[in-house]
Amino acid sequence: MIGIGVIGYGYWGPNLVRNFMNGDVARVIAVSDLDPAKLTASKRLYPGLETTTNFRDLLKNPAVDAVAIATPVHTHYELALAALKAGKHVFVEKPLAETSEQVLHLIEEADRRKLTLMVDHTFLYTPAVQKIRQLVEEQALGDIYYYNGIRASLGLFQSDVNVIWDLAVHDISIIQHIFDQQPIAVSATGTCHVAGTPENMAHVALFFQNNCVAHISVNWLSPVKIRQTLVGGSRKMIVYDDLEPTEKIKVYDKGITVNGSAEKARQLRIGYRAGDMWAPHLAAKEALQTEAEHFIDCLCNGKTPISNGTSGLRVIEILEAASRSIAAQGKPVRLKSNARLKEAAV
Amino acid sequence: MIGIGVIGYGYWGPNLVRNFMNGDVARVIAVSDLDPAKLTASKRLYPGLETTTNFRDLLKNPAVDAVAIATPVHTHYELALAALKAGKHVFVEKPLAETSEQVLHLIEEADRRKLTLMVDHTFLYTPAVQKIRQLVEEQALGDIYYYNGIRASLGLFQSDVNVIWDLAVHDISIIQHIFDQQPIAVSATGTCHVAGTPENMAHVALFFQNNCVAHISVNWLSPVKIRQTLVGGSRKMIVYDDLEPTEKIKVYDKGITVNGSAEKARQLRIGYRAGDMWAPHLAAKEALQTEAEHFIDCLCNGKTPISNGTSGLRVIEILEAASRSIAAQGKPVRLKSNARLKEAAV
Amino acid sequence: MIGIGVIGYGYWGPNLVRNFMNGDVARVIAVSDLDPAKLTASKRLYPGLETTTNFRDLLKNPAVDAVAIATPVHTHYELALAALKAGKHVFVEKPLAETSEQVLHLIEEADRRKLTLMVDHTFLYTPAVQKIRQLVEEQALGDIYYYNGIRASLGLFQSDVNVIWDLAVHDISIIQHIFDQQPIAVSATGTCHVAGTPENMAHVALFFQNNCVAHISVNWLSPVKIRQTLVGGSRKMIVYDDLEPTEKIKVYDKGITVNGSAEKARQLRIGYRAGDMWAPHLAAKEALQTEAEHFIDCLCNGKTPISNGTSGLRVIEILEAASRSIAAQGKPVRLKSNARLKEAAV
Amino acid sequence: MIGIGVIGYGYWGPNLVRNFMNGDVARVIAVSDLDPAKLTASKRLYPGLETTTNFRDLLKNPAVDAVAIATPVHTHYELALAALKAGKHVFVEKPLAETSEQVLHLIEEADRRKLTLMVDHTFLYTPAVQKIRQLVEEQALGDIYYYNGIRASLGLFQSDVNVIWDLAVHDISIIQHIFDQQPIAVSATGTCHVAGTPENMAHVALFFQNNCVAHISVNWLSPVKIRQTLVGGSRKMIVYDDLEPTEKIKVYDKGITVNGSAEKARQLRIGYRAGDMWAPHLAAKEALQTEAEHFIDCLCNGKTPISNGTSGLRVIEILEAASRSIAAQGKPVRLKSNARLKEAAV
Repeated sequence: MIGIGVIGYGYWGPNLVRNFMNGDVARVIAVSDLDPAKLTASKRLYPGLETTTNFRDLLKNPAVDAVAIATPVHTHYELALAALKAGKHVFVEKPLAETSEQVLHLIEEADRRKLTLMVDHTFLYTPAVQKIRQLVEEQALGDIYYYNGIRASLGLFQSDVNVIWDLAVHDISIIQHIFDQQPIAVSATGTCHVAGTPENMAHVALFFQNNCVAHISVNWLSPVKIRQTLVGGSRKMIVYDDLEPTEKIKVYDKGITVNGSAEKARQLRIGYRAGDMWAPHLAAKEALQTEAEHFIDCLCNGKTPISNGTSGLRVIEILEAASRSIAAQGKPVRLKSNARLKEAAV
Repeated sequence: MIGIGVIGYGYWGPNLVRNFMNGDVARVIAVSDLDPAKLTASKRLYPGLETTTNFRDLLKNPAVDAVAIATPVHTHYELALAALKAGKHVFVEKPLAETSEQVLHLIEEADRRKLTLMVDHTFLYTPAVQKIRQLVEEQALGDIYYYNGIRASLGLFQSDVNVIWDLAVHDISIIQHIFDQQPIAVSATGTCHVAGTPENMAHVALFFQNNCVAHISVNWLSPVKIRQTLVGGSRKMIVYDDLEPTEKIKVYDKGITVNGSAEKARQLRIGYRAGDMWAPHLAAKEALQTEAEHFIDCLCNGKTPISNGTSGLRVIEILEAASRSIAAQGKPVRLKSNARLKEAAV
Repeated sequence: MIGIGVIGYGYWGPNLVRNFMNGDVARVIAVSDLDPAKLTASKRLYPGLETTTNFRDLLKNPAVDAVAIATPVHTHYELALAALKAGKHVFVEKPLAETSEQVLHLIEEADRRKLTLMVDHTFLYTPAVQKIRQLVEEQALGDIYYYNGIRASLGLFQSDVNVIWDLAVHDISIIQHIFDQQPIAVSATGTCHVAGTPENMAHVALFFQNNCVAHISVNWLSPVKIRQTLVGGSRKMIVYDDLEPTEKIKVYDKGITVNGSAEKARQLRIGYRAGDMWAPHLAAKEALQTEAEHFIDCLCNGKTPISNGTSGLRVIEILEAASRSIAAQGKPVRLKSNARLKEAAV
Repeated sequence: MIGIGVIGYGYWGPNLVRNFMNGDVARVIAVSDLDPAKLTASKRLYPGLETTTNFRDLLKNPAVDAVAIATPVHTHYELALAALKAGKHVFVEKPLAETSEQVLHLIEEADRRKLTLMVDHTFLYTPAVQKIRQLVEEQALGDIYYYNGIRASLGLFQSDVNVIWDLAVHDISIIQHIFDQQPIAVSATGTCHVAGTPENMAHVALFFQNNCVAHISVNWLSPVKIRQTLVGGSRKMIVYDDLEPTEKIKVYDKGITVNGSAEKARQLRIGYRAGDMWAPHLAAKEALQTEAEHFIDCLCNGKTPISNGTSGLRVIEILEAASRSIAAQGKPVRLKSNARLKEAAV
């Protein structure tokens, strides 16, 4: 039986406890939070839990094999590093840390100690994103032309990270997962409408080789909730609406046909092709449950997590580049080709 | 009775003829098109029309007081200039011309001859945009935070202009019309997925004073048609969906409240306010009919059109700046404050 | 060239003229209407048309091979009978006449003279209904369990027929067309909310053999327009929404599975099966164009129309039975098995 | 502190426990269920609960002031009667019992002992239904013309009650609550598509005085989930869609205007009036929480519950009449004017 300790029992922590409790192989044995009231709440639901206001108690506990961290972003690095140094496997809520440098340290520390480091990019474990990835891998879409995502709603304004670190991070991790290539540059714009708070609205463009492009629109100040993504390919195109209760993914057999040669552009004939639409049935399994099982499976069987430190690193690098571009009103920022990533891919 | 000549009887020309025919004050008397088959089609519907393959016949005709031009973009300047020089009032399909320099010449020519020059920004005459403008003017939204528009569908790829000159032009003219200030810079990205054709997908950010921002997403290669715009204000927010058959505009009494001072950002308390939604009844009148009547009214009564040469010029200047930014992958381009516009405003 | 005469140039007549004009084989040569202003309007669009306020002029005209009737319901019988007696093929707007007795006379007259009698059940010629019929015929749905249709909107109140003769007639003709059996009884309820006018809201249940059932809800006094139909089968189920711009038909691979025997009902295990959804691409062709071509094809090649007098008769018989049931607050009314229909089926 | 015992910890029971636990005034102290595994589950969440497989233990427990019953329908009467005889207040899941005779006994027993008897018609406590009732009471809709409700989804087939006792019961209780009059007759049709099971699809029409009518369509075998209700009035009309996440109620300022007198029906001029749509903000409070608080409030302060025995009785009488009408294929069944109800109203 794998023992799990959870650090942070605020908004996301209870979900972690519930899902890590669910399995036959692992069990949450201890929870820490600075707020004793939250610990009391946790004990009401799970009387057998050990609780503490000092996370170091978890790290000292030999029954704890792994810790899951669900605390404010600015504490991720310190907590994760301490856990690794204490010999614990680590599962961290997104984003993995505040800087890519911090992430690199965590990766190195985990590698050195042969510990598993996983970042909680929950969307990668949803049936919807898994289906999109499968369709892309099977070449069902043909050449990928673009990813165009919108995440908008009213709230929740955060005080320590801006809207791209809160919302665009989801899309960036999804794009990482379904595309088989890395972006080479990013251009982003963002605006803050409340003095003294981070940007609450932003648009991020990621440039890839071969005219493939991704665009992400995020907004904390929208009157309606929107979670809509288009993925366009040369053969088929997908509309992914995460707010649809069942038909989250619609695959359109639509596209264009081109006659003539690019040299004689004015004579190009563009044809429009419209075929059936198909909404594949998706399993109803909770993504966090799938993800928790995957973490445990990686611990037990020495596998590398899908959302490992290296993929978390790339997400942070893109967020950092986007932040620099926002500061320069959209000026493009090159992304270094990442040697570490290439190794990881080998 | 005002006599109208229509140059170009392709996609948009028949709509112009139908709407300019409708009035009691004006009447279409002649149509020109290079394609005789189209002229035959026009005569089948309107047997009394004079038709010609040479637009100069219209300009020579003393019964023609004004010409409406619905031809490919690259011919707008030459045709409009010839019409003005022939003493005709001019109504031109959007965009007004290919360059701001051309537009300046047209404005000067029209001014010198005391002729009316109007550009067909049809959306300004829709009941939906008129209602949004009214709400903004009445301060119902409070401070305007943002405009966020999406226009996407499959087709129609054009060979001489890219997607921002075809689609974003609508949003830019709307933004011009409903905001009481001019953008100061633009950042845009765009992609071409078919070698030899113009960009078929683009995102344009317009920066204003006071953290007000506009963002436009346009796409010729979308599996679904989308015409959705959010306008966010400090008091209320609007969702404008042009594909809704009746409730095109929804006004949300939603927003945030801020407690605390910007100096102590970490202590800021953001509150969320959710009230009623309201969809004002909109008249069903066809926008082009309203616009045609407005053009005739301007001719007869010496008024300046809402979508006059000067507002058409500003749209072109923004499109030119956006094109330069696209070429530089989002690098921001400053917009000169336009002396001419200021005069016009006085 | 088949010569067509159109009687009635009010709401539907112009559509008939436009679509019968469209072909290479047939042509509208004359139009009659009691209102000279409408005749003037028709000549403006089609200068070559002969026009008259006396429909008998059409019947005398030897160039007129067939007449299409688009007049108020209470005139259908007299006009159609006169046209048949004058040796003209006849195409009549729905419903075919006011009583089944009248329809029988028309059928007999047409049979005796070997003339084509067709009723304009436009929906049968829509790509959507054609696709549903194809899926039913291919047994894709399995056993048909039910048809459940809603037609609601604000208006148009009619003065001579109630809402079932105006709206439910569409569903009844569709049900006739896609089911391979006839209803055996009908129960209907209806209400009139404006004194002195016919029922503006009604519900009609049609009972078939084998527990198959159809239900139709119609409403002239709805705040929103609804055109939604469910067709349930043992293998698949269809949602048909006629207001959807493109995906009018969605086929759901959903249903139940039953384990256990009916004798031990309390031990029956019902399972629920959920699979993919599929929206077949539908052609964009206008139904009335398809229908007009079908009428001409029947004339030229001696074929029997899909919506012939006999199918029109059955629709009227069902409407009559439903009217009797409405008068008795839902009391079921048996439908005679129709000997004539059986012959037609042989 | 009011002590609550809950009988039945299956699908609905856990919701009852959670909501009755929530208050400061009441507390669930014991739970009974025939299945020990369910009791174990309840203890895991609420370690302090007493649990038993014998409901009589709850009735004997002097700390239990009231019982909430969430068991199969056929057990309601026996359990509720035993609880009342043991001096406990009673809260019963809908429908209150299997027959109106049983309900009458329960009402008499409760009255005799001055105990509160309440039936769990949860929808009456939703913010949406409360808002509709308020609008009706304020005469905002004008004269009420109709209620038209649809409840459809795939499952859950029940073995002891048919679809009207499971789903239409909600609409009947809502109609009771928002209309200020009682139906005078009912016509219903229903179909069973699985031999050996109760009807899984039905339509129920309720006739009121003054041409007011209600119609309910329920379906366990629909490919899509539908929860849509129209309420039509002479002044305004409501669309209530319970699946909408936030804008569940839309109020349309639409209707008809009538000119002319009913005597000269053919000359009646019907006008159509279209105004704004308005979606009032609704509180997000869980209905069962409101309902639980109301039950406790009635106990403590001697109030009569909104969904008391008498209103539960009328719902059962309508269900019984509808069942008889279904058996007779829609033949209308008169509803006796209920002397008891009149007393209750006085």
